[in-house]
Amino acid sequence: MKRQIWLTSLVLLGCIGAVQSVVAAEPIQPIEPVADVNLAEVELGKKLYFDPRLSKSGFISCNSCHNLSMGGTDNLKTSIGHNWQQGPINSPTVLNSSMNIAQFWDGRAADLKAQAGGPIANPGEMAFTHTLAVDVLKSIPPYVAEFKRVFGTDTLTIDQVTDAIAAFEKTLVTPNSRFDQWLLGDTGAISADEEAGYALFKNSGCVACHNGPAVGGNSFQKMGLVAAYDTKNPAKGLAGVTGKDADRFKFKVPTLRNVELTYPYFHDGEAETLTEAVDLMGRLQLGRKFSAEENASVVAFLKTLTGEQPSFMLPILPPSTERTPQPKPFD
Amino acid sequence: MKRQIWLTSLVLLGCIGAVQSVVAAEPIQPIEPVADVNLAEVELGKKLYFDPRLSKSGFISCNSCHNLSMGGTDNLKTSIGHNWQQGPINSPTVLNSSMNIAQFWDGRAADLKAQAGGPIANPGEMAFTHTLAVDVLKSIPPYVAEFKRVFGTDTLTIDQVTDAIAAFEKTLVTPNSRFDQWLLGDTGAISADEEAGYALFKNSGCVACHNGPAVGGNSFQKMGLVAAYDTKNPAKGLAGVTGKDADRFKFKVPTLRNVELTYPYFHDGEAETLTEAVDLMGRLQLGRKFSAEENASVVAFLKTLTGEQPSFMLPILPPSTERTPQPKPFD
Repeated sequence: MKRQIWLTSLVLLGCIGAVQSVVAAEPIQPIEPVADVNLAEVELGKKLYFDPRLSKSGFISCNSCHNLSMGGTDNLKTSIGHNWQQGPINSPTVLNSSMNIAQFWDGRAADLKAQAGGPIANPGEMAFTHTLAVDVLKSIPPYVAEFKRVFGTDTLTIDQVTDAIAAFEKTLVTPNSRFDQWLLGDTGAISADEEAGYALFKNSGCVACHNGPAVGGNSFQKMGLVAAYDTKNPAKGLAGVTGKDADRFKFKVPTLRNVELTYPYFHDGEAETLTEAVDLMGRLQLGRKFSAEENASVVAFLKTLTGEQPSFMLPILPPSTERTPQPKPFD
Repeated sequence: MKRQIWLTSLVLLGCIGAVQSVVAAEPIQPIEPVADVNLAEVELGKKLYFDPRLSKSGFISCNSCHNLSMGGTDNLKTSIGHNWQQGPINSPTVLNSSMNIAQFWDGRAADLKAQAGGPIANPGEMAFTHTLAVDVLKSIPPYVAEFKRVFGTDTLTIDQVTDAIAAFEKTLVTPNSRFDQWLLGDTGAISADEEAGYALFKNSGCVACHNGPAVGGNSFQKMGLVAAYDTKNPAKGLAGVTGKDADRFKFKVPTLRNVELTYPYFHDGEAETLTEAVDLMGRLQLGRKFSAEENASVVAFLKTLTGEQPSFMLPILPPSTERTPQPKPFD
């Protein structure tokens, strides 16, 4: 009996060793499920994420443009803001965004907490102010009680609001894609064509920027490295943050996780399909024209990156009271 | 032992008898949980209800104005439509709407299925066409497969779309409010003040229109019966449907179920609070000025009508494909 356990252990160790070596040898690592979350804070953050009362109109919530039914995006070229204003840039997915080197296409927010306050107060997005958002929440007793339970103080602040939204967003990871199953040793999880697409993705150089667990999100790169990118979008990228001319058109490399769901593509949202996006990336970044077969093969690989989408109950929001400032959609 | 069972049965029968007589004697009946649903159709309908691709912009879904996080309403005076158009009338709650005598404030749709197609094609709301909505769905293989599973045919039609949305909406009932618990015999479920509010609600005549399981929704009544209602809203009510002058300003009596969540009130959304709504109803419909104490007592009763909100997982929508017509938010 003892001998049998010993042998079984050896076999198990052998398997684990093999799996680890597959993972270690690849430039992409599996997404880890979230651990160590403060559940009470996550639940509060989920409510806030879905609450349109954080906008001037009472109509736009975080979920309006980072829709968790739709890959954490709005699937529009650029978003619709207060009074139907056309946004300046494509809304990046919130999925796996905690792995980003920084937030926004130009990286102007260091982390999710710093990002969360931006759209609330942006006149072209939710068009509210942090003070008014906090006033709304303070007028709603179940929110006041929930903030107190989570943060242990009687004062409700915008800092707590963005902290809770970020805590919720950190749970929005998408593990267990077919590609991750393959990385972890299940050789049947992706097809031969998809595996060939991955080989091409590596060999042709895509992986130079799209690597790590998020398959991107961890560096800034110039859009139009080999050939200039032709766009009407005036966004300057990282240069707008650093003021350095060398950073013009440098944008955060987007994650390719769930890329099948996060169309349209690029900071201007001009590539409607994965086929277009792969073709343009090949020509502009790698100086390579993928054949139709090669393109289809890379696209097939990219679709294996769709992971388990966040699964949760639609939150029920506590009602406003007679003291709650009224939304002003048409002012 | 036999004798004990016999006695227990007698006691149980006695209790059931008492509960039934309480219910039978009251003009309001408890909400029944839904039964006999086609789960596959409900799941499809839920996806469609949350899918903004049924709008021209790709931004507005049924849930935008009938938000299930917010009592099945948008909590705005009048809704925001395509291109931020201001809607002509307050969005009624979708909760318990299957009990309505007809749909819309003026009853122009006979049932939920007839209603569901309206906003999709209304130029001021989702601004799409039924043909384009069906084209979008037909371009998405998982939708095509799901329609086939539910309806057993290869043709995907707008009739099936509205049927599935209505099937989902029929599940949006809110049983087990504190008032229903009281109706069913739990005398401690509401306070003495709330019970006094209910007595006043009955004695002063509110219950003449707000009765039945939905506490309304089952008749059309003139807004401003005793005194004229002063509004800038041009809606004519039932007269717009029947063409009869006698039906001017007759609107469907709204359900008072979950009324704490469905602010603001009336077809023009001009009453921001329950206090205002109760005061106006007293003066305009009953020729009665409620004192501050009476008003508060009725409001306390109304808040016991908040039931269990629909509880379900946020649906994950199947992605568009290269064949899917693009949304046109800014055309």
